Amino acid sequence: MTRERLYLYDTTLRDGQQTQGVQFSTEEKRVIAETLDQLGVDYIEGGWPGANPTDSAFFETAPATEARMTAFGMTKRAGMSAENDDVLAAVMNAGTKAVCLVGKTHDFHVEAALGISLAENIDNIARSIAHIKSAGREALFDAEHFFDGYRANPDHALEAIRAAYDAGARWIVLCDTNGGTLPEEVGRVTAEVIRAGIPGDHLGIHTHNDTENAVACTLAAVDAGARQIQGTLNGLGERCGNANLTAIIPILLLKAPYASRFQTRVTPAALKGLTRTSRMLDEILNRVPFRQAAFVGSSAFAHKAGLHASAILKDPSTYEHIDPGDVGNARIIPMSNQAGQSNLRERLTAAGIAVARGDPALGLILDRIKTREADGYSYDTAQASFELLARDALGQMPEFFEVKRYRVTVERRKNKYDQMISLSEAVVVVKVDGEKKLSVSESMDETGSDRGPVNALAKALAKDLGRYQGIIDDMRLVDFKVRITQGGTEAVTRVIIDSEDAQGHRWSTVGVSANIVDASFEALLDAIRWKLLRDTARAS
Amino acid sequence: MTRERLYLYDTTLRDGQQTQGVQFSTEEKRVIAETLDQLGVDYIEGGWPGANPTDSAFFETAPATEARMTAFGMTKRAGMSAENDDVLAAVMNAGTKAVCLVGKTHDFHVEAALGISLAENIDNIARSIAHIKSAGREALFDAEHFFDGYRANPDHALEAIRAAYDAGARWIVLCDTNGGTLPEEVGRVTAEVIRAGIPGDHLGIHTHNDTENAVACTLAAVDAGARQIQGTLNGLGERCGNANLTAIIPILLLKAPYASRFQTRVTPAALKGLTRTSRMLDEILNRVPFRQAAFVGSSAFAHKAGLHASAILKDPSTYEHIDPGDVGNARIIPMSNQAGQSNLRERLTAAGIAVARGDPALGLILDRIKTREADGYSYDTAQASFELLARDALGQMPEFFEVKRYRVTVERRKNKYDQMISLSEAVVVVKVDGEKKLSVSESMDETGSDRGPVNALAKALAKDLGRYQGIIDDMRLVDFKVRITQGGTEAVTRVIIDSEDAQGHRWSTVGVSANIVDASFEALLDAIRWKLLRDTARAS
Repeated sequence: MTRERLYLYDTTLRDGQQTQGVQFSTEEKRVIAETLDQLGVDYIEGGWPGANPTDSAFFETAPATEARMTAFGMTKRAGMSAENDDVLAAVMNAGTKAVCLVGKTHDFHVEAALGISLAENIDNIARSIAHIKSAGREALFDAEHFFDGYRANPDHALEAIRAAYDAGARWIVLCDTNGGTLPEEVGRVTAEVIRAGIPGDHLGIHTHNDTENAVACTLAAVDAGARQIQGTLNGLGERCGNANLTAIIPILLLKAPYASRFQTRVTPAALKGLTRTSRMLDEILNRVPFRQAAFVGSSAFAHKAGLHASAILKDPSTYEHIDPGDVGNARIIPMSNQAGQSNLRERLTAAGIAVARGDPALGLILDRIKTREADGYSYDTAQASFELLARDALGQMPEFFEVKRYRVTVERRKNKYDQMISLSEAVVVVKVDGEKKLSVSESMDETGSDRGPVNALAKALAKDLGRYQGIIDDMRLVDFKVRITQGGTEAVTRVIIDSEDAQGHRWSTVGVSANIVDASFEALLDAIRWKLLRDTARAS
Repeated sequence: MTRERLYLYDTTLRDGQQTQGVQFSTEEKRVIAETLDQLGVDYIEGGWPGANPTDSAFFETAPATEARMTAFGMTKRAGMSAENDDVLAAVMNAGTKAVCLVGKTHDFHVEAALGISLAENIDNIARSIAHIKSAGREALFDAEHFFDGYRANPDHALEAIRAAYDAGARWIVLCDTNGGTLPEEVGRVTAEVIRAGIPGDHLGIHTHNDTENAVACTLAAVDAGARQIQGTLNGLGERCGNANLTAIIPILLLKAPYASRFQTRVTPAALKGLTRTSRMLDEILNRVPFRQAAFVGSSAFAHKAGLHASAILKDPSTYEHIDPGDVGNARIIPMSNQAGQSNLRERLTAAGIAVARGDPALGLILDRIKTREADGYSYDTAQASFELLARDALGQMPEFFEVKRYRVTVERRKNKYDQMISLSEAVVVVKVDGEKKLSVSESMDETGSDRGPVNALAKALAKDLGRYQGIIDDMRLVDFKVRITQGGTEAVTRVIIDSEDAQGHRWSTVGVSANIVDASFEALLDAIRWKLLRDTARAS
């Protein structure tokens, strides 16, 4: 059975850059373009040459890709020829195989925003597309506000896209620019456009997520016959973002009826890199990955409810619609007071701790977790602290070292230049192999800025642990989260610390106390104990 | 023209609690329930009484709401009567007007997970629903895995929901438990269920966002005839979350064809509180609000593209599908602070500060706020700190007193009984009316528990402010929130402190620093300065 070809057009580097707070460097654009090519999209819209220096520079050094590199611009302005429009010339000069031009199809925008006649608008579209064709390039037409335009004046909207099609555009892309059109209407209008004479295999769909329906609108257009999909990685884009290719691609490859009907350039092997690709983009943007993202979120296959978790252990298909491994993601069975013994065993096994079904230790561990959660702890994410708690309950936890005491001072005062400065200092006293060790550190970083009492304490604690020092020297505190929560009847502070080592391992620990410094200390201590546990176990 | 009634069923407090990392306290559940009631949902699913201590405690003290409070549980187990099932008894004992029971409708789950016959399953459903009815309660049936079950064995799936309907269930809720069903199928199956004899006005829809289609699936079911919608605020829920009521409600109230066809209990006035409600929930969960959230995200109406922004200034409908004010949100145009100035004047007026339109001080205040927000400050909730900043920029801020220095020590050590204890101590030096005053306090509360360094610092700072002492003696710190956020290129700590006085006034202040103690000190200082400002102004 042959499957019909469906084309993926990525606009992360252009529309994705409209996201509030996002600004790619040229080098970042290059890395993202290469990743998109490995993933297997058909088109990479690299930006708008001439609109800003980064985009222009990107096209000058764009990587060679199998995906077709595309420059974006707008149709020529009225009152000049396509050849004489300098904005269009800058787009053409990028020298890409494909050029995509946005143009008006909503009469209100033609008259109110451009201030030209409808006939002039049609002429601008036709001549601009013909100009691209005559230069031997592939032409695409982004029909801006198409659905709003079709609602207001279907004749003009259709005339505009027909002009682009007749002038030789390979793709007419129906854009729901304001993101307000719902899936039923997108499907219906797409079908009407095909009936009006634009073949579906020349139609693309470009939607936005303003009603949380961008993916559904895209599928509705494909159901109606459109064969090109525009979107962005992680749904980046202006306002609420563009259609999310990170959700659409796995739907197309894994879900009925799309998987059996359509073919894209994305292979099952490339799909397994999807989660990594999504995280890489967040890494570049310095964003915290969205845990609940479809398919690629770290919670996407997290089963917290006890009843669900026990069924999952019997058969994952009971509560999973796909195999998480197909998109490079993984199942998580978090521990919480919602969970039962089967969650717990699964999680212990994942940590390399074997406990037989029905072992009374399971009940003991669950009780300790419930008591601690009532005190404000949370083991959903703090896997390392969970593991320490379990090993302790099982009598498998070496002591390594003992903390005798610590003291931190936080000061704010004037320095010799009469400026107010703050400074923290920490003293930690530990006993290792029977020997008492005092360590002191202050809170200044390399630039002379105060990083606060927790920083000073972390440095002092990790300064001299005797024969263990070599193991913890490559540890680094990478994230620190604080929240005030209820612990028993009092408000307490919960601190979650993420640590990392030189081998790229990353682990999370938790501490709770009414005293925020003490809660942090507890999480720091767990982070070190877990690292020692893992690395001494490996060595032995 | 009469509009058809559509019912909203909120499960934030039950399914929303399955979100990884979410753990509501009983008090938080109470606050959320009251907020949901103000918003105007029809049903509030409060939790599963008997499943965990928090849920049980919530029902014991649940607030009186116009929305129907609903307890959740599961159908009785095989081999015992409904009356003798202790799990079901705990649910009934919560005494709610409505009871929603989840039951199996997918043959695979009946046989694989429950290990009972299909006939026994039907019997469990019928008898459980009849049991609720005979107790004079409203019965709802959550048909778990309905769409998967209907695909595998339509006869059993239909028989199961018909049993519930015939036994008197007010609502049969079709659940896409695994979240893998796409909108087209949800709509088609819902229509088939109605054709099979379950009236649409007795059908509900419950979807999950595993393919980013939960909202679209919900709309597809409503299009097909279902008249109850289940979902959660901010799309909380297991894995990728439940259908997001924060997106669905504005679609129903503002968008065609829903706005003219349907009526809910949510009023246009309540809809204007939607953004605030969404942020309140994030505040309780200490989550960073999702900027790109449909309708309520802070970026949802942010227009970054230059062409868009200039068109927006001519006519907002050019790039906005709804008026952001309708959902209590606001337009952001990063390049223009024109809109900013009128917002600012409104907010100053609310604080009793009159500034004429066009006063250059407005630009100065806006600049200071922007700089501070880039450093990690947030004035969304910290109205008192905002007011101090504005008065300072206007030269209307008295100095009252000067902080010369402070020092806090945090210690953990053994006491004389050889127990590890922690203790903090703070010294604050201020200058009031030319006189230097040293104050010292420790962190122990009346019960001898350590309340941490911020507590000690707050007590020392408020101990002796000379002639102002009488004004601040009735101040009390009532809430303390901490968030790690981005300040420039570094992670910093933002502290928000809520204070209260004997007259019942409540005000919020903010402090930011890499040093958590120093950030807290700044917020404490603002809290005192604001109280002095207000009470000395009143006295004079």
